[in-house]
Amino acid sequence: MTNNITIALDCMGGDEAPNIVIRGASKVAEDNKSVKFIFYGDLDLINPLIEKYPNIAGRYSLVHTTENISSEDKPSAALRRGTKSSMRLAIDSVKEGSSHAVVSAGNTGALMAMSKVVLRPLNGIHRPAIVTFMPNRQKKATVLLDMGANIDCDANVLYQFAVMGRAFAKAALRIEDPKIGLLNVGSEDLKGGDVVKAAAALIKQSSIGPSFYGYVEGDDISKGTVDVIVTDGFCGNVVLKAIEGTAKMVSGFLKEGLTGSIFAKIGYLFASSSLKSVFRKMDPRLYNGAMLVGLNGIVVKSHGSTDDVGFANAIKVAISLVENNINEAIIKEIESSGFSGSLSDVEQNELKING
Amino acid sequence: MTNNITIALDCMGGDEAPNIVIRGASKVAEDNKSVKFIFYGDLDLINPLIEKYPNIAGRYSLVHTTENISSEDKPSAALRRGTKSSMRLAIDSVKEGSSHAVVSAGNTGALMAMSKVVLRPLNGIHRPAIVTFMPNRQKKATVLLDMGANIDCDANVLYQFAVMGRAFAKAALRIEDPKIGLLNVGSEDLKGGDVVKAAAALIKQSSIGPSFYGYVEGDDISKGTVDVIVTDGFCGNVVLKAIEGTAKMVSGFLKEGLTGSIFAKIGYLFASSSLKSVFRKMDPRLYNGAMLVGLNGIVVKSHGSTDDVGFANAIKVAISLVENNINEAIIKEIESSGFSGSLSDVEQNELKING
Repeated sequence: MTNNITIALDCMGGDEAPNIVIRGASKVAEDNKSVKFIFYGDLDLINPLIEKYPNIAGRYSLVHTTENISSEDKPSAALRRGTKSSMRLAIDSVKEGSSHAVVSAGNTGALMAMSKVVLRPLNGIHRPAIVTFMPNRQKKATVLLDMGANIDCDANVLYQFAVMGRAFAKAALRIEDPKIGLLNVGSEDLKGGDVVKAAAALIKQSSIGPSFYGYVEGDDISKGTVDVIVTDGFCGNVVLKAIEGTAKMVSGFLKEGLTGSIFAKIGYLFASSSLKSVFRKMDPRLYNGAMLVGLNGIVVKSHGSTDDVGFANAIKVAISLVENNINEAIIKEIESSGFSGSLSDVEQNELKING
Repeated sequence: MTNNITIALDCMGGDEAPNIVIRGASKVAEDNKSVKFIFYGDLDLINPLIEKYPNIAGRYSLVHTTENISSEDKPSAALRRGTKSSMRLAIDSVKEGSSHAVVSAGNTGALMAMSKVVLRPLNGIHRPAIVTFMPNRQKKATVLLDMGANIDCDANVLYQFAVMGRAFAKAALRIEDPKIGLLNVGSEDLKGGDVVKAAAALIKQSSIGPSFYGYVEGDDISKGTVDVIVTDGFCGNVVLKAIEGTAKMVSGFLKEGLTGSIFAKIGYLFASSSLKSVFRKMDPRLYNGAMLVGLNGIVVKSHGSTDDVGFANAIKVAISLVENNINEAIIKEIESSGFSGSLSDVEQNELKING
């Protein structure tokens, strides 16, 4: 357990900032007596709120700015014009060593672009990615990456995703030896395109090879067949949103069903506590806290529409990642793989043919 | 309404064949007084069953075979060794004109491989695809393709999927002017890879351009933002299975919640009729009947684990496709597009650059 962890909090990102940020921090402070915060944002808004939470008194510092990255800003514009924004200043603090991690509920594209420029990719990592975790039928969650940072990925990039996803599962979810699956259209060896086949070959021959389960399919995400599922940013993003949409649709139908008639309403009264405890497993707030992984510094993205409970969970993810030195684990794994530097096109092609 | 439609039924595909096939046919025969059937399979099994359904008496013929394609057979093996299989003979009957469509709950890969060889792709179609439809929050369903027949797709192939998906939505779901979306990682024009951008450019300039909504994201499938969603077979397959998995997980949690305590059970008694009517919208049997689209002949794939109600729905999909001449509609659209023949690599590259 690292002592005196400081988390930089972007107080201008997300639908309900700065409220949920400060309330979220207060919730975390309740359980964690040593964590400290730096709040970045408009002090005219922050100061009156922060007084309501005496449990964080003396455990934070404030940095004032009125510059904000909006959810519509393009990453390039955010980079050019957002140098004094709350998001940027919070990232800068990680670079400068005044904080151990940054948490923001703001614009994902801008957060990734700024983090790449300020923090730079980890030594040997070609493409930082976005890694998240989702509910499944088992006890723990399924870690999934890339969630949309990289549309086209070659085999080596997918291998590096496997390393980073595994390190995230260990650090954030405390899974001891996370099993890795590669998302594909079938579990047989012959299935899938050349890139996926080459990635499977790379992972097998790497130091994480013993943790490689093989190919998994779309329904393995909710089955919890493996702990970490690797795919490119296009598929990852589409699948994540399709799953979120389906869960919303089903719960919408459920709500309709349980309020549809007077009998249904009576039924709901009887069943509600049991239903709530079961559906707690699917509460999206429990799965809030995606990491921008592969950077020299810990950057955690909160969902923009979450509440204080969700934001507190994102902060807790950041703390776990700091405590468990995720980046050191990633660097070590990549270095020991033997092909961390970069694969030439010829080598990759050979892997494709032999894979 | 076409009279005297004959449907060829593979009585050896799926978990519960031939039972569900014959019972499904009987259900369809109840509503449709003119449809006829040809049953392909082991008469020792079929004959005793068929006697139980007097409403199909005189409305079917039988073709005996004991050769079967198993769910484990590879497409290549099925092609070589399955020439006398129930699946193959049923497909042959469409080619020979003795039936108007074939329905099978058997091995999808084998069904596609055999159908391609026997029926051949439609004039101008580069890649036959698998098109299905799924529940959404609106009244009608969302049509989705390709579900896994084509891993890598270029822009012209995606354009042709749009044409075929739209024709399916018209013929099978009776949607008058189906709106088309292209699956992507964001709805902004700049998002996505080169192929998706080039496909959007192609669809816009084609005769179906006015029905093109633009890019859609993963959650638009359940939102019902558009009627038809186009993507490559890798993403389509992964997304379909992820959605099925999520729906199963949520209903699993629901079941747990409604049987978890004595109070929950009492609640369920009150709410059950209301819940059932709402969840009917999501009954997978209602969405059974994927088409292998783009072939000279109508081939419908039933889910392997469905029951008689689901199989009956697959037969009804086949009948609708015959009645509405889906293949003529596809050919007409492709011919009028102006680039139906085939795009050279150079042309495609130009489209990419200009797209």
